[in-house]
Amino acid sequence: MGREVKVELTNMCMICDGTKVLVQNRTKPGWPGITFPGGHVEAGESITDSVIREVFEETGLTIEHPHLCGIKTWGEPDRMAEIAFLYKAEAFSGELKSSEEGEVFWAERDSLPDMQLASGMEETFRVFFGENLSELYYSRKDVNAPVGEWRYEDWEYKLQ
Amino acid sequence: MGREVKVELTNMCMICDGTKVLVQNRTKPGWPGITFPGGHVEAGESITDSVIREVFEETGLTIEHPHLCGIKTWGEPDRMAEIAFLYKAEAFSGELKSSEEGEVFWAERDSLPDMQLASGMEETFRVFFGENLSELYYSRKDVNAPVGEWRYEDWEYKLQ
Repeated sequence: MGREVKVELTNMCMICDGTKVLVQNRTKPGWPGITFPGGHVEAGESITDSVIREVFEETGLTIEHPHLCGIKTWGEPDRMAEIAFLYKAEAFSGELKSSEEGEVFWAERDSLPDMQLASGMEETFRVFFGENLSELYYSRKDVNAPVGEWRYEDWEYKLQ
Repeated sequence: MGREVKVELTNMCMICDGTKVLVQNRTKPGWPGITFPGGHVEAGESITDSVIREVFEETGLTIEHPHLCGIKTWGEPDRMAEIAFLYKAEAFSGELKSSEEGEVFWAERDSLPDMQLASGMEETFRVFFGENLSELYYSRKDVNAPVGEWRYEDWEYKLQ
């Protein structure tokens, strides 16, 4: 050990029930719109435990055996700035309950493209739905531009 | 963005050719024995690009479409200390060539348990080989013990 970088660690989970998926309509001003539930990894917990906790906090559901289906990453020239761990879950228990993060509800997976998606969700779905993609990697369009407020528009992506 | 932690990012890849896998006999004093090729994620590269680069440097092979099959993580009480991204690759080109990291050679997958494995590889194989495991999470056996030299024996693990 010894080559550490400063990185933000988050998770996001697609919960499936047949042809439906559980979506969250985030009210957060900085990133509003339809997403899947998720949040930050806390100190001392595994990535898997973090996604189970976040899903419970935001949906009231306890997911079982979530499995990692890919990652969404943001690379700065000098470091990896954020890694979001993307999980799928097909088994769960509990009663659906929204949180202050946003209303949660079941939606047909095929209807997702017609919804008011949060920025970046369209390309994120390609990792969740695709069998042969593992990573959605964002990098700055202009690495020499001054770093101001964080905006999706300043980043370009590749799917791998 | 804003909740950053100091973490070390690494990768490891199981390259498969039928029933054989490519192993590396690491000579590094701190962690000797049989592993799969891999190394550190460098600044400015995606995780996928990092594993393609490391495999090339250590084996001479260029892998195509590596896919993420899980993660190996080390959690300290106050942060995630290391995340290793575990990849599988079935397509590759180039000529096999060992590096100073250690000799690389093809081995029957079934023969791996009989080899002189590097510490932790036995449980790591369970993520590489298992269909329903996504994470191998290590935490300190005794969080109050003074942190000395890094040793596998001081950590316990769970598979999720």
